[in-house]
Amino acid sequence: MEIKAAVTGHPILKLLATRWSPYGFKNRIVTNVDLRSLFEAARWAASSYNEQPWTYLVATKEHPDDFERLLSCLVEGNQAWAKNAPVLALGVVSLRFVKNQQDNRAAQHDLGLASANLVMEATSRDLSVHQMIGILPDKARELYQIPPHFEPLTALAIGYKADPAELSDALKTRDLALRQRKPLSEFVFTGKWGQPSPLLRNGESQRTDEHPKSHHS
Amino acid sequence: MEIKAAVTGHPILKLLATRWSPYGFKNRIVTNVDLRSLFEAARWAASSYNEQPWTYLVATKEHPDDFERLLSCLVEGNQAWAKNAPVLALGVVSLRFVKNQQDNRAAQHDLGLASANLVMEATSRDLSVHQMIGILPDKARELYQIPPHFEPLTALAIGYKADPAELSDALKTRDLALRQRKPLSEFVFTGKWGQPSPLLRNGESQRTDEHPKSHHS
Repeated sequence: MEIKAAVTGHPILKLLATRWSPYGFKNRIVTNVDLRSLFEAARWAASSYNEQPWTYLVATKEHPDDFERLLSCLVEGNQAWAKNAPVLALGVVSLRFVKNQQDNRAAQHDLGLASANLVMEATSRDLSVHQMIGILPDKARELYQIPPHFEPLTALAIGYKADPAELSDALKTRDLALRQRKPLSEFVFTGKWGQPSPLLRNGESQRTDEHPKSHHS
Repeated sequence: MEIKAAVTGHPILKLLATRWSPYGFKNRIVTNVDLRSLFEAARWAASSYNEQPWTYLVATKEHPDDFERLLSCLVEGNQAWAKNAPVLALGVVSLRFVKNQQDNRAAQHDLGLASANLVMEATSRDLSVHQMIGILPDKARELYQIPPHFEPLTALAIGYKADPAELSDALKTRDLALRQRKPLSEFVFTGKWGQPSPLLRNGESQRTDEHPKSHHS
């Protein structure tokens, strides 16, 4: 899978460069020992006022009813491939501070911090995570009795990534696609919006431009 | 600083366990080589539809006007300690997809994913990051000419954490405070909201309870 390692313009941790979001998962369970460490990693993320506004609803394939219930909360396009992951989770945010019931503007952001920790821990254990925004929040709310002021936001498929050779053509194409990102000069600014930071000078490596830009950039 | 390492209930990466958000920073610059790698780490985060909705406005103390401008976008309580960090950044999210101008519900979440990568890379370089939600978005919008449909959401103070012994009493107390988190059983559920996941069984280590619960839990 080294082919999918990021072609980075500047050196970064191997764990960050080799992480990617597979569509194909092996038919192999994830142990509870590993899963506990994944959620423990999420637990220690930073959060605004240490509110820890994240909750995860988890289902494993060893419990088919649980798994089907969680799978049914994804949009159809995601169900099609996520059904092969051995573990699914929903990421839910608390929209108000417990202490004073004020709105927590950082809630979604802080779920991102926690999930990134989870993904990092997973990567270190040869596990992969594919996060999705394509869920059915109302269905999740109903099926899991999620209280008001909590928002189901993401889903996470967790497992061992498949060998692309064993995948259907459609999934194989997706999993073999090159990873692409905008150059730093398009999102690291100094002084004024749109002005690339001088800290990037002599540092926007040639390698950044070896690959075609993403269609987003 | 080992005293601040998380007392984890389950093993996690040292980088995740030792990360924390200091209020005190050393008077020591961060090299551009390091900063480029921090933003490169953010660059390779996952995002919904690979939109990469994050932008960072950065200022270093070597450029006092830039630094003062960015510092002025923080709320006063944060300015008081963040002024000592050698590098400040604002995290801004694009609220609409470039491709079709539809709302991006994942935007804030995905800034969290990118910033978590940045923090991880920083930790590996003995740098610390303190993220804040306490900013003045309207002032940032005006000073940096941030376009509509972009939202300044967070600030990040980046630098080498100070020895608490060298800090004022108020900051020393904050930086020596124990790190506390809710137990996994309060945010990892299966089957129904509020029902601790069976995957936690035999795994909710005693060590989790050695410290008093956070007031949030």
